[in-house]
Amino acid sequence: MSEKKRRRAEPSQSKSSRSSSHAHDLKKQLKPDADILATLRRLRDAAQSSTSNQTLTISDLNLASPCREVADLDSPSVLLSIERAALSAARSILSGRGFSFSIPSRSSSNQLYLPELDRIVLKDKTSSRAFANLSTVRKATITARVLSLVHAVLLRGIHVTKRDLFYTDVKLFGDQTQSDAVLDDVSCMLGCTRSSLHVVASEKGVVVGRLVFSDDGDRIDCTRMGIGGKAIPPNIDRVSDLESDALFILLVEKDAAFMRLAEDRFYNRFPCIIVTAKGQPDVATRLFLKKMKTELKLPVLALVDSDPYGLKILSVYMCGSKNMSYDSSNLTTPDIKWLGVRPSDLDKYKVPEQCRLPMTDQDVKAGKDLLEEDFVKRNEGWVRELEMMVRTRQKAEIQALSSFGFQYLTEVYLPLKIQQQDWL
Amino acid sequence: MSEKKRRRAEPSQSKSSRSSSHAHDLKKQLKPDADILATLRRLRDAAQSSTSNQTLTISDLNLASPCREVADLDSPSVLLSIERAALSAARSILSGRGFSFSIPSRSSSNQLYLPELDRIVLKDKTSSRAFANLSTVRKATITARVLSLVHAVLLRGIHVTKRDLFYTDVKLFGDQTQSDAVLDDVSCMLGCTRSSLHVVASEKGVVVGRLVFSDDGDRIDCTRMGIGGKAIPPNIDRVSDLESDALFILLVEKDAAFMRLAEDRFYNRFPCIIVTAKGQPDVATRLFLKKMKTELKLPVLALVDSDPYGLKILSVYMCGSKNMSYDSSNLTTPDIKWLGVRPSDLDKYKVPEQCRLPMTDQDVKAGKDLLEEDFVKRNEGWVRELEMMVRTRQKAEIQALSSFGFQYLTEVYLPLKIQQQDWL
Repeated sequence: MSEKKRRRAEPSQSKSSRSSSHAHDLKKQLKPDADILATLRRLRDAAQSSTSNQTLTISDLNLASPCREVADLDSPSVLLSIERAALSAARSILSGRGFSFSIPSRSSSNQLYLPELDRIVLKDKTSSRAFANLSTVRKATITARVLSLVHAVLLRGIHVTKRDLFYTDVKLFGDQTQSDAVLDDVSCMLGCTRSSLHVVASEKGVVVGRLVFSDDGDRIDCTRMGIGGKAIPPNIDRVSDLESDALFILLVEKDAAFMRLAEDRFYNRFPCIIVTAKGQPDVATRLFLKKMKTELKLPVLALVDSDPYGLKILSVYMCGSKNMSYDSSNLTTPDIKWLGVRPSDLDKYKVPEQCRLPMTDQDVKAGKDLLEEDFVKRNEGWVRELEMMVRTRQKAEIQALSSFGFQYLTEVYLPLKIQQQDWL
Repeated sequence: MSEKKRRRAEPSQSKSSRSSSHAHDLKKQLKPDADILATLRRLRDAAQSSTSNQTLTISDLNLASPCREVADLDSPSVLLSIERAALSAARSILSGRGFSFSIPSRSSSNQLYLPELDRIVLKDKTSSRAFANLSTVRKATITARVLSLVHAVLLRGIHVTKRDLFYTDVKLFGDQTQSDAVLDDVSCMLGCTRSSLHVVASEKGVVVGRLVFSDDGDRIDCTRMGIGGKAIPPNIDRVSDLESDALFILLVEKDAAFMRLAEDRFYNRFPCIIVTAKGQPDVATRLFLKKMKTELKLPVLALVDSDPYGLKILSVYMCGSKNMSYDSSNLTTPDIKWLGVRPSDLDKYKVPEQCRLPMTDQDVKAGKDLLEEDFVKRNEGWVRELEMMVRTRQKAEIQALSSFGFQYLTEVYLPLKIQQQDWL
C-alpha cells in the first residue's frame, strides 16, 4: 500500500473524503434550473390562490368573549380618535365628573393564542385610569401628554422614535419605560398600530432581490442594490407600490448568509426577494415582511440556524412576541415554511461532526419549552425536527454549510432543498 | 392675580417657558440659508485645497525604527504574495530546513501612536512561527490553512465572512478566535488589508444624501433612497465611482438622529452626505467613510452624544481601535470636526436640566481616561470640552434636543451650529 493510500485509509481522512464526495453526490442530484423553477412556480401559485387563514379576522371566529386587535389607520382617522378622546375628557370635566381613560389590559392573563388565526390577541379586560385618583393620576397625566404629542407628530406629518418622545418631557415621564408603556396603551386604546401613531423603531433589516417599491416617494429597485442591499425603512406607512416577479421570499436569519446570497445574486437564478433582520427580528422588518407577503401573495421560505433560537426567531415572525400581542395581526406573517437548516439536514447533508456544536443544558431547555408552544404543536413536522434536536443535543449554524465550500449554500444546498420541496 | 398667572409664576413653569422662549430666540438668530451655505462652501474648499496630514505616509516621517502598515492591494497582487509564501515554504522544506512564517507582532508593546499621522501603527517586531517546533506547529498549520483558503476565495472572486472561514475547518481551528487572529496575522504578513483578503465584516451602517456610487456595478443614488437609506456594502472593494455635490459629510452616532435627518431631507437644504454606523463603528462603515473623505475631499462634521462614549466613537473613526492598528491607515479618517452635541452646548442651547443625565463614576473615569489619550491632548478645544464634562458630571444624548420640538435638531440646532462655524 502506498503512503498516499495508507493515509486515505485512516478513519478521519476517509471520513472527510466521504463527506466531500457526498457533497459532490448531492450536487449531481440537482436537476436543471428549469425544473426547480417549475417547483417554485407551483409553490407561488398555491400561495396566490390559497384562501389561507391570513384572510380570517377575529370577527370571523364568533368567539364567546370579544377580542381586541389594532389596525393600521391613516393619520386623519387617528387624529380624529385623539380629538374625540380629548373632547370626551373635556365634557366629562365640565360636567364635574373629572376624567378617566379606559385602557385595555396588556398583561399575559389578558392574552390569548388563537389557533385559527395562529396569532396572539388581547382579551377584553380594560382598566380605568382616572385623573382624580391618587394611584392613577400620574399615568392619566402621562397618557394625556402622549396623546397630545402624538397629535402634534401626526399634524406635522413626521415620524419620531420612542426615545424622541421620552425626551420631550423627561420630568413627567421619569424614565423611558414609562412613556413606552403608555405609548402601547394609547395604541390599544385608539385601536391603531404603533406605526399609525408615527412612532417608529430603528431599522436594522436589509432587503435585496426581485422587488421594486417606493420609500417615501423614491422608487427603489432591489435588484440594483449591489451586495449591501437596501436598508428596510423604519416608516412602513411610507412604503408603497410593491412590484415583484419573484416566485418566493427567502427569509434569512443572519447577515453572513444574506451577503453570500446577495453576492452570488441568487435571486437572478431563482427569482426571489431576500430579506434579513440580522438576528432578532425588529419591528420594521416584521412589518415589511408582512406587507410583502400580503400584497405580493408570495410564499415565504425561511433559512435559520438549526438551534432553538433559529426556531424562536421564526416564531416571532409568525406569531409575534408576547409584549406586542395587541398588534399581532399587523406584525405577524403566518404560513412561513421552515426550509432549513433543520436538525434532519445535519445527517442528510452530512454536515461533518466537527461543524456541529453540542447543545448546552440551556439550549435543550429552550428546545423543550418550544415543544410546549402551540405554534410548534400544530405542525407535526416541526415537532419531529425539534424532538430530534433535543434528542441528539446537536445544533448547527447556517455557516456550517461552508465546510463543503463557501458557495455550497447557494449552489447546492438551497437549489436541492427547493427541488425536493423539502420545507415544512 | 388670576389662576393662570399664578401658575405661570411657579418656578418650574417659568423655567420651561424660559427654555422654550430661548429656543425661539436661537431660531431668530438663524441667517438665510444662502449665508449658511456660503460658510459650508468655505469649509469644503478648505478641505479640498488642504495638504493635510492625510497625504503623509510613514515613509515621509524618517522614523528611527521602521513601522509597518498594510495597504489595499488588488487580488492578483495578494494571490502573488500568497504563492510566493508557499513557494518559499516549499523550497525551505525541500532543502531540509522545514518551514516557518515570519509574523509581525500585533501586541500593544509593538504599537505606536504617530502624532504626525494621527494614527496607531505597528513597530517592526516579528516572531518566527516554525512548523517543526512543538510550541508553534499548530499556529503554523493554521496559518498555512488560512493562506490556502484566502487563495481559494480570491481565485473565485468572491467574499466571505470570518465565520465562513472558521467553518471550513473547525477541527483545525478549534474556535473562531484562533482563525480570526491568524487572519489578522496573515494580513500583516502579506502587508495588505483584511478587505484585500476578501474577508469581510457584516455591515450595519447606512448612508443617505448627496452621493452617487456603484455597489458591485449597480449605480446607487443616495438622494433616492427614501428614509431607510442605503445599507453600506460589506465589500468596500466593490464600491467605486463616487460622485457628489455635497459640501460636507455629516457623521451621526445614532440611527434615531439619522432617521430625523433623512425624513426631513436635511441634505436637500444643506447639501451633505449623512452616514451612521448605528453606534459602535463597524469596519465597513469606517472603510466607507474613509473612502468618501479621500476621494471626495469633503470635510466631515460629527454629531455624537455628549458623553465619553460619543467621543470614544469619534476616536475609533479618527485613530482606529488598538486591535486593528496595523490596518489603521485604511480604516481611519483623520480631521473629523466635533460639531456636537458638546458639553458646552448644554448651557449654550439651554438643554433643560431634566434632559441631562448624571454621569456615573464609570462615565467619569472613561472621561478622565480620554483626557490622557494623545488624540484628545492634541486638540485644545476637545480638552476643554472634556474637562467641562468631567467637572459638571453631566451628559446628554442627541435626542435630548427633542425637548425643544422633534425637528429642532434639523431646523435650528444644526443650521445654527454651522452658521456659527461652531465645530472643533
